[in-house]
Amino acid sequence: MAIPTVEIIDDAVRIIDQTLLPGEYRLIEIRTREEMWEAIKKLRVRGAPAIGVAAAGALAVEIGRSPASGAGEMLGELEAAADYLATSRPTAVNLFWALERMKSAARENRERSPGELKKILLAEARAILAEDLAMGRSLGEAGAELIPEGSGVLTHCNAGSLATAGFGSALAPIYVAWERGKRFRVFADETRPLLQGARLTAWELGREGVDVTLICDNMAAWLMKKGKIDLVITGADRVAANGDGANKIGTYSVALAARAHDIPFYMAWPSSTLDLSLASGEEIPIEERGAEEITTIGGKRIAPEGVKTCSPAFDVTPHELIAAHVTERGLIYPPYEKNLRQFAGPE
Amino acid sequence: MAIPTVEIIDDAVRIIDQTLLPGEYRLIEIRTREEMWEAIKKLRVRGAPAIGVAAAGALAVEIGRSPASGAGEMLGELEAAADYLATSRPTAVNLFWALERMKSAARENRERSPGELKKILLAEARAILAEDLAMGRSLGEAGAELIPEGSGVLTHCNAGSLATAGFGSALAPIYVAWERGKRFRVFADETRPLLQGARLTAWELGREGVDVTLICDNMAAWLMKKGKIDLVITGADRVAANGDGANKIGTYSVALAARAHDIPFYMAWPSSTLDLSLASGEEIPIEERGAEEITTIGGKRIAPEGVKTCSPAFDVTPHELIAAHVTERGLIYPPYEKNLRQFAGPE
Repeated sequence: MAIPTVEIIDDAVRIIDQTLLPGEYRLIEIRTREEMWEAIKKLRVRGAPAIGVAAAGALAVEIGRSPASGAGEMLGELEAAADYLATSRPTAVNLFWALERMKSAARENRERSPGELKKILLAEARAILAEDLAMGRSLGEAGAELIPEGSGVLTHCNAGSLATAGFGSALAPIYVAWERGKRFRVFADETRPLLQGARLTAWELGREGVDVTLICDNMAAWLMKKGKIDLVITGADRVAANGDGANKIGTYSVALAARAHDIPFYMAWPSSTLDLSLASGEEIPIEERGAEEITTIGGKRIAPEGVKTCSPAFDVTPHELIAAHVTERGLIYPPYEKNLRQFAGPE
Repeated sequence: MAIPTVEIIDDAVRIIDQTLLPGEYRLIEIRTREEMWEAIKKLRVRGAPAIGVAAAGALAVEIGRSPASGAGEMLGELEAAADYLATSRPTAVNLFWALERMKSAARENRERSPGELKKILLAEARAILAEDLAMGRSLGEAGAELIPEGSGVLTHCNAGSLATAGFGSALAPIYVAWERGKRFRVFADETRPLLQGARLTAWELGREGVDVTLICDNMAAWLMKKGKIDLVITGADRVAANGDGANKIGTYSVALAARAHDIPFYMAWPSSTLDLSLASGEEIPIEERGAEEITTIGGKRIAPEGVKTCSPAFDVTPHELIAAHVTERGLIYPPYEKNLRQFAGPE
């Protein structure tokens, strides 16, 4: 996994501009909160864990240039920048989690000198990144057992190396199982409207030599009927206390089809994705995106001018459809209400 | 409905080149079997009923130029041309039905002079077209009652004016209900890979002033969950004796989602779509199409070079998921085995 999705260098956050993949592989450097806001909004960096890491990095590098003469003033700057970055995307909870963690680190160290605080914040952002890398490996090890030799595995959107700092969530078990010598077939939903499956998942799995077949989203149920799919693994952008999980639009449809064919459906996510403050998925805000993401593809218009659209970016899969949640600390089975609280540990 | 999807003029079949919609509205004239084969294969003309009409027209205009000195020789030419056209697409039964009807007309009139036979074949092709136009109106009247005032209606692919000689199958009830003053909201699945919903259904419904909202295929289930959809109507490319129906890939996925939300799912088709020679949908051949339809959109590459794909053009919806079939002779409810045979009448 040598894909440098997010790197925190001294004065910038370096990311792969994912809007250009698979046609072009370009690294860009981001130095300001405005640039990071734009990069998140435009999905140059996307995937719930990667967004969190990138946003934390942007806070650290921006504060690193702050002329503030005291830590109190610096804390105010950091909080303003964090609040601004939090408005970039509403659904992924990891973003808020990472921003909150940076604010906490600053608050806990408000007695330090500005120079010391800058170093602490940079170290905190890098710790978030390092933990994300380690998370991917652990999550992969926990989930690899779910993939039988010779099976067909369906995934939706991209919850791989490109969605995290390095190893992925949904794709982590696939990478670990493959690395251990298991052979199986991955089907990647292309994932309209933004085609993260076609552009990103097919690209990164192919790059690692994993056997991947690209399909349109509407083919998944039929392939299940034809016996080609044995399990489904997707990522998650936010998981509520009852086990409902928000993920890329189309995930719910896949989960319904899996249920109709008695195929297990798993959601894979790092613990920062869990939001126990929400009782159920009903409370997860769903981002609505612009019409042009549906009516044009790569700048080419595919629908009549002026047609109305509806474009929720995410949907919520109810916990009844989820066979298990896969996390960096192991598999979580129903009853989720109880087991997720246990997973989160004492408040 | 003034959309001239297929017209049979004296020496050519005139069609709208649907590959250019919605960007360009262009009529093209087809004079030979080879041109018609290419037009069907490339989906310049598509939709099961429209293909049948267009192919019958192509036979008539080609035979119209035949220098054959006897009807027997002419019949041989017609059979060869029909067999050739039958290889253009394997799933739609209306194509075979229309070609067979042209062959029967020729066989029944093999005692006539070549000049008379040419006129008979042209008249037969025009009769197929006229019946298709009348079929759309009747089917619309039969199905209009299924659409409640204020409801949300989902359709998949394009089974409208552009899929028939003029009035549509799935869209016919929508047009008739709208014409009668009912107001409701239509959701059109964009229908990957070839985007017939985005390019054609959104275009023709919009042109007629019907309230249409374009969505990606993977959003349909979520909109059902959110209470936006009250019924689903699709077309069909072939219906077997047990009521299973083949239609555009993705139809099965929609039918599963409809079932999960207790929403009725209807298939609308003219009687030429029924194939009682097949006991069930298992026997319907499913066309597999090329990778480039998935990996490129409008010439723009959206997936990595060399990625494997799987691209069934159709899927089969089992009869258990179909609340009723809508035909030009009324609604057909379960048990389908019995009621479809009754519908077809004595052998």
